[in-house]
Parts: sequence; C-alpha cells; structure tokens
Amino acid sequence: MINTLYLPELREMLAAEDGAGLREFCIALHAGRTAEFMEGLVPLEAWAVLLAADSATRVAIFGFLDEEIQVGILESANPTELAPLIADMPPDDRVDLLHHTDPIVVETVLSLIPTEERRDILRLRAYPEGTAGAVMTTEVAKLPETLTVRAALEEIGRQAQDLETIYYIYIVDDDNHLRGLVSTRQLVTQLGKPETLLAELMKRDLVTVSATDDQEAVAEKVADFDFLAIPVVDAERHLVGIITYDDVIDVLQEEATEDAYLAGAVVPLEESYLATGLLRLTRLRAGWLLVLFGAALLTALLLKSYHEALQNVAWLVWFVPLVISSGGNTGSQSATLIIRALTIKEIMPSDWVEVVWRELWIGALLGAFLASIGYLAACFLAPTPSDALVIPITLMLVVVCGTMLGALLPLLFQRMGLDPALMSTPFVAGIIDIVGIVLYMNVAIWLLE
Amino acid sequence: MINTLYLPELREMLAAEDGAGLREFCIALHAGRTAEFMEGLVPLEAWAVLLAADSATRVAIFGFLDEEIQVGILESANPTELAPLIADMPPDDRVDLLHHTDPIVVETVLSLIPTEERRDILRLRAYPEGTAGAVMTTEVAKLPETLTVRAALEEIGRQAQDLETIYYIYIVDDDNHLRGLVSTRQLVTQLGKPETLLAELMKRDLVTVSATDDQEAVAEKVADFDFLAIPVVDAERHLVGIITYDDVIDVLQEEATEDAYLAGAVVPLEESYLATGLLRLTRLRAGWLLVLFGAALLTALLLKSYHEALQNVAWLVWFVPLVISSGGNTGSQSATLIIRALTIKEIMPSDWVEVVWRELWIGALLGAFLASIGYLAACFLAPTPSDALVIPITLMLVVVCGTMLGALLPLLFQRMGLDPALMSTPFVAGIIDIVGIVLYMNVAIWLLE
Repeated sequence: MINTLYLPELREMLAAEDGAGLREFCIALHAGRTAEFMEGLVPLEAWAVLLAADSATRVAIFGFLDEEIQVGILESANPTELAPLIADMPPDDRVDLLHHTDPIVVETVLSLIPTEERRDILRLRAYPEGTAGAVMTTEVAKLPETLTVRAALEEIGRQAQDLETIYYIYIVDDDNHLRGLVSTRQLVTQLGKPETLLAELMKRDLVTVSATDDQEAVAEKVADFDFLAIPVVDAERHLVGIITYDDVIDVLQEEATEDAYLAGAVVPLEESYLATGLLRLTRLRAGWLLVLFGAALLTALLLKSYHEALQNVAWLVWFVPLVISSGGNTGSQSATLIIRALTIKEIMPSDWVEVVWRELWIGALLGAFLASIGYLAACFLAPTPSDALVIPITLMLVVVCGTMLGALLPLLFQRMGLDPALMSTPFVAGIIDIVGIVLYMNVAIWLLE
Repeated sequence: MINTLYLPELREMLAAEDGAGLREFCIALHAGRTAEFMEGLVPLEAWAVLLAADSATRVAIFGFLDEEIQVGILESANPTELAPLIADMPPDDRVDLLHHTDPIVVETVLSLIPTEERRDILRLRAYPEGTAGAVMTTEVAKLPETLTVRAALEEIGRQAQDLETIYYIYIVDDDNHLRGLVSTRQLVTQLGKPETLLAELMKRDLVTVSATDDQEAVAEKVADFDFLAIPVVDAERHLVGIITYDDVIDVLQEEATEDAYLAGAVVPLEESYLATGLLRLTRLRAGWLLVLFGAALLTALLLKSYHEALQNVAWLVWFVPLVISSGGNTGSQSATLIIRALTIKEIMPSDWVEVVWRELWIGALLGAFLASIGYLAACFLAPTPSDALVIPITLMLVVVCGTMLGALLPLLFQRMGLDPALMSTPFVAGIIDIVGIVLYMNVAIWLLE
C-alpha cells in the first residue's frame, strides 16, 4: 500500500535541498505514519529525507520502512553515513535486516560500527532464523535486587533511551543470573513507599525460554500469558535477552502466513508477493504442483487399468469427478480443523483416539448425507436404480476415508515432530483422488458383475 | 492441553476443605500457570478452588481459564458469590464472556452487581462482535494536561489497580475529549524534572479508531505501529476506550483461524474443535459441502452430455481427474497467495492489473511445464502422438484459467467489501472442475474430429 499524498512535496524539497522542510516532515507525525508516506520514494531518495532528521527520529522512521526499501538503502547509501544508524537500531531488528542484505555490504558497514555493537550483532546472527535467539533483543532493563523503588525508577529513567521496553525490569545478580521480575507498574504503585527494596517486590517464579526454542512456541507462550515480554536464558539461567510483544505479533503473523501457504501448496515466500520475481515464484510453485501432478497421473493409469472390466458401463466415468471431489472436500475440511486445532494447542497428538472417533462419526454422517443426494442423481443417469447404488456406497466409503486421512495425517506429522500443516489439504485431496478411484472401481465391479 | 500434575492434590485439599493449602496453590505461581493446572477440574471444583483465593488473585486466575470452564462456572455457581468477580473483571473480557453465557444467568448476575459496572457492561454489549467496541476496555488511564510529571505518576500509582494498562496515559479535557498521549516511559525519563507539565510532553498526533471499526483492521493498525494500545473515540473525539496489545494478539489469532477455516471450506467454529458437538460440527460442514457437491454434480451432467461425441475415444476419460486437479491446484495456489497478500495489505484491489498480469505469466509458465510432462504421459496412453496433443493443449488452458480465477475472485470479493478469503480455495477448485471439463471436451472435439 503506497500513500502518494506527500510524494510531490517531498521530491520538491529534496530537489531544493530544503533541510528545514524535510526535518519538519520527519518529526510532524508518528514515525510509522511518516514511513508510510515515504514508501513511494526510491531508496536513495528515502535516505536523503532521513538524513535531514535527527538520529533518533531517523532510526524510528527507518524501522517502519518496508524491508525492501531498508535493504535498498543499505545496499546503495554511503556506509559511513549508515554506520551510526545501524549502531542505534534495536538489536533484533538490525540482525533480521542484515540477514537479508548483501553480505559484502554488511561486512563494510560492520567494520565501521563500534566494537561492542558489532559483537552483539555477530552473537545474535549466530542464532538460526526461526529460533527465539533470532528474534530476541539484548537491550534489557536489568537491575540488582538491592535497589530501592526510588533508585530503580531513577536508574531506569537514565537508561530508558537505550532500552526496547522499560516496563518489565529484570532482576539479576552480579553474574547476570536471572533472579526475578519487577514491573514499572509495581514501581509506580509503590511510589508512596519509595524505600521498598526490589527484592521485596519481585516475582520469582518466571516463565522463561531458551534462545534455541522455536519462535512459534515462544510466541504462543507470550500470547497465552498476555506478557509484555518474555526473558530468554541460557542453560545456567544467565539472562541473554528478551522477546517483546511486538516481535511476538510479527512471529504470529509470519506463522499464520506460512500455514496459509502450506494449506495452498505454496512454498512460503521470503519477500512480499509483488516483490518476488516471476520466475522465482513460478519455481516455488512448480515443485509441489509436480508432486500433485504425479499423484494425478496415477489416477489416469488406474482408470486405464480398470478399462477392460468396465467397458460396457460408460455412465460410471461421469461420476469420477464427483466421487473424488467429495472425498477431497471432506478430507480438506478435516485436515483444516485438525491442523488449526493442533497449531493453537486445542488438541495434542495424544488426543488422537478421540479425534479419530469424532471424524469417523462425522464422516459417516456427512457420507450418508452426500450419498442420499448422490443416489437421487445417479438414478437419473444409471440404467437401473440397483446399478445406481454404486454411487452412494462409494460416496459413503470415500467420505469416511477423506475424514480419516484428513485427521490422521496432521496428527502423524505432529507426532513425528514436523509441522502438522505440512501434509496439507491439497495433499489429502491428491491422495483421496487415488484412493477414491480404487474404491469406486472395486465397488462397481463387486456390485455390477 | 490438560496438565494433570496437581489434580489429585487439589481434589484432596477440596475434600479436606483445606482453605490455607488452596490459597497457597492460588498465589504460588503466575495466574496463567495456575489456570493451566486447574483445567482438569470440573467448573464447580475450579470455583471452589478460586473461592479460597483473595479477590484479585481470583479474577486473575479466572481470566486465564478456558472459556468453557468460565461459562461452566457462571452457569453453575452461586450468583451472589459470582457478582463481585464479574464486577472486578476487565470490562472487555467480561463482555466477551457474557456473550457466550446463558442469558438468564447473565440477567441474574447483572442484577447483583453495582450500577456503574452494570451500565458499562450494557454499553459494551451493544457493540456487535467483530467491532473495535466489542474488544475495547473502558478502564483507561486518563489525566488532565495541567498535571506535572510528579503528580501524574502519583495519580497513576493510585489508580493502577483498576486499570488494564498504566503505560499509555491519555490526556483528556474536562469533556473527555482526547487531547494527547503521554507514556509512562516519558514520565520516568522526566523524573529529573518532576515539575514538567504533561502538556509539554504529550504527543498530539494520535492514531485513533472508532468503536464501529472492524476489529481486524484495528488489530493490523496496532501491529503495524507496534503500539501497546490504541484509543477508541466517538464522532466528537470523546475517548470511549482503548484496545490493548493482548487483545490485538487475540484478534489476530482469531482472524488467522477464521481464514484457515474459510480456506478449508469450514464455517468458523465458535468453540474449540473438541468442545463443538458432533452434530453441530457436521451441520457446519454440510452446508459448504453441499454447494461443492452441487458443482460436482454438474461435472457428471457435463460428461454425460459429451458422451455421444466421444464414444470412440475412451482414453480421454482417463485424464479427466488429471486435467481438473491440475487446474484446481494451480488455482488454489493463486487464491492462497492473493488472499494472504490482501489480508496483510501487501496488495490492494487497485493493484489488480499487475496481479492479473503476473498470474497470467505464471499460469503460462506452469501450464507449459505441466503440459510437457502431461504430453509424455499422454503419448503412452493415446493411440497416436497427434491425438495425445489434446492433453497438453487442455492443461495449458486449464492451468491459465486456474491462476486467473484464483487471482480474480479474491480481488473481486475485496472490491465488493467482502472478506477476500470467502471465495476460497475449494470453491476455486469446484469452479475449475466444471470449466476444466468444458475446455477439455471442446479441445478434444476440435482436435480429434
């Protein structure tokens, strides 16, 4: 979504080198809105606008730009001017950005920023994408438990500008072991007793995660508990970082996108739809299409193999699409329900007996429903009502197979430690195409011969 | 997911009426964890445990229980004991809960709680589910702009226990018109200058929403700007409530679930999968299955209508499932990509020319790819290589139709103000089944006669 409202004015100011006007534009609105108005600029124009702003505003607006523009700026602007921006960015955001930038550019920029920041970047970059370590920030409000409420508020006020959140304050000992948590809410509530020690206020039973935990599991935990942030600790319970609610929202959206793609047999894209090249997008789609096409080729071979036996009952083939789509659709429904329930932890793989039992019943009910309509239709097209019985019997069997397959495959995948969404609806439909034809032909042979 | 670790101890303490032990259990852990350990109890047992806790802890733990247990407690516990709990719950959560509770029980409980709280409940209940009004809370930190930093912190400290968040403080005039926003972070940073007026600190350019806005659009806005909360105002800019990040996370998860269901042709469930009755679940699935079944019946009629013309080319029907599934799968992919891109605002309906152009190219490339494999297979099964040409030509056409339909339907739906996910992948596949057979038969008649 590109907002072009201010583009002409911005370009005019850039041409006129109107630093004061550009500075005014940068600070007039919330940084997120300012970024929206800049989306239509090319990276070097956007960078020229940002250079007019003070460094804090520059970092804030830059953080809200689309990743494509951010990468564009990094790969085209002067590294010496870029270095302070990178040094000031939130650690988690910059690591994510550098992951997507030309490594040669990254090397150059890294060589220009202060040692401490560089070490932090290198440490965070070591965590693979998709782990808690890759989304955490290292800028954490940490205090010793011996401080008073008054001293804590003053200290946090001093540190605030370097911290991602000041609302959760982690209590650590001299060796950086996590001891507890005090919220700014608690501090403010205790203002009447400013000499209270943090040790008296802090919660000691904390939910923590490890840097190597899967980001999705971490995000679900934060979402379940309504936390503002969750601490990341290592095996010795050293506090290595925190993951804040805004990163959790990003992770949840990313995972929802990924699951939607899997349900549509598309390999998750790394960039936005419009930013992904045509050939690349075609390649990402071709792989799974090929697998599904292979399954569909089997249906052609199957139909050919039954050809001799069924030469004189031509009407049977008219119902082939109906039979396989009925199985596919009920299977898709089951897979969708079970995958989603597993994803949001409504059911666990250990619930499989209950799930299978329910889907068996639902399959039987839906099968009976579709079979009765199918029988009416078949009576019109088949030579006799007794021949037409092939259709309802097949539908009943195919629909039950569909619900069973749709329920069991995601459970099996979860059990094997894989993403349950992986064996998604198109695959259930692809398998049901084959199973459906085998069932259909055998019911026909058994009933008609 | 039910954690049974403490269930025996809890039941023992309940039987022994061990109030002290139960109280200890309630306060020992984070309320969210305590709630997890209570999931295995029946509602009246859970309520008996909660009655042992102080009222603040009771509200906190109750808020983390599954909605089914919450409703169970409301519908079975003593209304006089329940009333204080309802009065103390966060306004947005209790309205949501009362929406799902037996109206007779709601009437009884409402009559027992203080007038002011009751009015608040009735006002929030008036907003339809799915709107910003229905998820907002009315417990907002509000201050006049004439306060100093010191006075503001003290006042917020006093109010804290009634507020959902104290980290965003909204500045209002005497008539409750929204004037600005000061964060607790700003206050803490200004502790060195405690006499600064809020008027000097407050941000005036605020992103606001209206109570009748769609909850999904509001959630996207909060997620985009990384806000902790967003203010809800009426037409005269009176501050009527706020929506906090935790509600935004819930809304985003709810919408992701809904989209996943739509993509699987399932009417979104109101309760969890396991809590939805078998017959109800069957009914929710039967509606769309019937629509898809109707489309599939058309394929049977179509195949019958082409029967005379194609009596002597039996091999053609072997490829029917292959042809229609190829179109269905590419169509599903396109629909998935476009729906998701629309949902996360990567593309707008006004981008339709570019989207159609891209999908046309991708369809042509994928069609050519599948057509070449299909031609090889057809050469084995068709009598002559020139007859076999029917298959690649049809595949090319069907695949392009699939990508076009998969791209255009979501765009059309968005344009009409409907949810783009509504015309979802199974429907694209259902339509492609019919289109595919018509194309296939006509290509065959044209080429073979």
